[in-house]
Amino acid sequence: MTAGPSSACGPRSASPRLVLASASRTRQRLLSDAGLAYDAAPADVDEAAVRIAMRAASRSAEEVATALAEAKAAAVAGVHPDALVVGADQMLECDGQWFEKPADLAEAERNLRILRGRRHRLVSAVAVALEGRCAWTHVDVAVMSMRAFSDDVLADYLDRAGAAALDTVAGYRFEGPGIQLFDAVEGDMFTILGLPLLPLLACLRRCGAVAD
Amino acid sequence: MTAGPSSACGPRSASPRLVLASASRTRQRLLSDAGLAYDAAPADVDEAAVRIAMRAASRSAEEVATALAEAKAAAVAGVHPDALVVGADQMLECDGQWFEKPADLAEAERNLRILRGRRHRLVSAVAVALEGRCAWTHVDVAVMSMRAFSDDVLADYLDRAGAAALDTVAGYRFEGPGIQLFDAVEGDMFTILGLPLLPLLACLRRCGAVAD
Repeated sequence: MTAGPSSACGPRSASPRLVLASASRTRQRLLSDAGLAYDAAPADVDEAAVRIAMRAASRSAEEVATALAEAKAAAVAGVHPDALVVGADQMLECDGQWFEKPADLAEAERNLRILRGRRHRLVSAVAVALEGRCAWTHVDVAVMSMRAFSDDVLADYLDRAGAAALDTVAGYRFEGPGIQLFDAVEGDMFTILGLPLLPLLACLRRCGAVAD
Repeated sequence: MTAGPSSACGPRSASPRLVLASASRTRQRLLSDAGLAYDAAPADVDEAAVRIAMRAASRSAEEVATALAEAKAAAVAGVHPDALVVGADQMLECDGQWFEKPADLAEAERNLRILRGRRHRLVSAVAVALEGRCAWTHVDVAVMSMRAFSDDVLADYLDRAGAAALDTVAGYRFEGPGIQLFDAVEGDMFTILGLPLLPLLACLRRCGAVAD
């Protein structure tokens, strides 16, 4: 699903500087692994306030993730108007309930007990802002089937994951020991990790930020 | 797609030692990231001979990958009869042509020029041997759409990837700068990386090698 005037990102002669509006180590690693040069500049956006307001307005998780990705890109683009700024957001929805990054391991454990034995959706959005305004967005969904693991497995997972569990929505790191909590997944690996990378790279090529 | 008498891997009281019959750093990393304890013992199997013989017998890439995963698991299980041994193999097929790990960067470049602008299939198989015989296999396919990248992008990719390009079929590392060679992928991330991890973990739980 793509929205926004992608024509705003046509071919350019100069290669713009790339800025990632995210403090997520996973997103930074994905860009680094892909061989991109970028600066990281976390956005100062009141995400909880946006979620609460959009929830009250009956907006979907896709709409919220897209709005937050846009808001993060726009906030950082205001500080770096010469740069091409990438914002991203991920939402977790299970039977209409939204989950956020847990504040501590006790909350991570509560979340995982709710999700255990059920399917949930990971909704990942990415936005690119150029010359101070949002030029492109993309949102994608992965469906995750969490298995009915034992309490021992849950305790062992929380022990192994430690503070890293707090960096992710709902408290699992799929790319680490969190994989043991799942039966099956349907969807793109980068959507699961929180940054739809292939559509983003295509946008960056159109913008001249990455060689074609 | 699953084959073999999985009932051979029912619940056990003792937790068997896990051995990975592979020298692949990616497969070792996947098991380590998942939090599994294992020993690595590369299998001594003449893979080229198996491929040539099965090609002559008009076998599919799925059948070859499965046979090679089984052969690797069985070969190592002969040396470690007390262990639960995991074998794996990956095949790359493009319009009926099979590709193998390139011997050098020149061959990697030739392969990538053939695959450029076309779709190919990555076929990943995994097998588990217990008490010296193969008890379970699984094979899965991902479809990869390589984009029509420029010669400059290809040269830059080979520069960045270096010798690591020789560790993979056809010479691209999808989890590194190789991602820039693709438009789209359809399939499981672990299948792309060469080890269908979720079905393997389910088998290891049934075998008692991983907590349930």
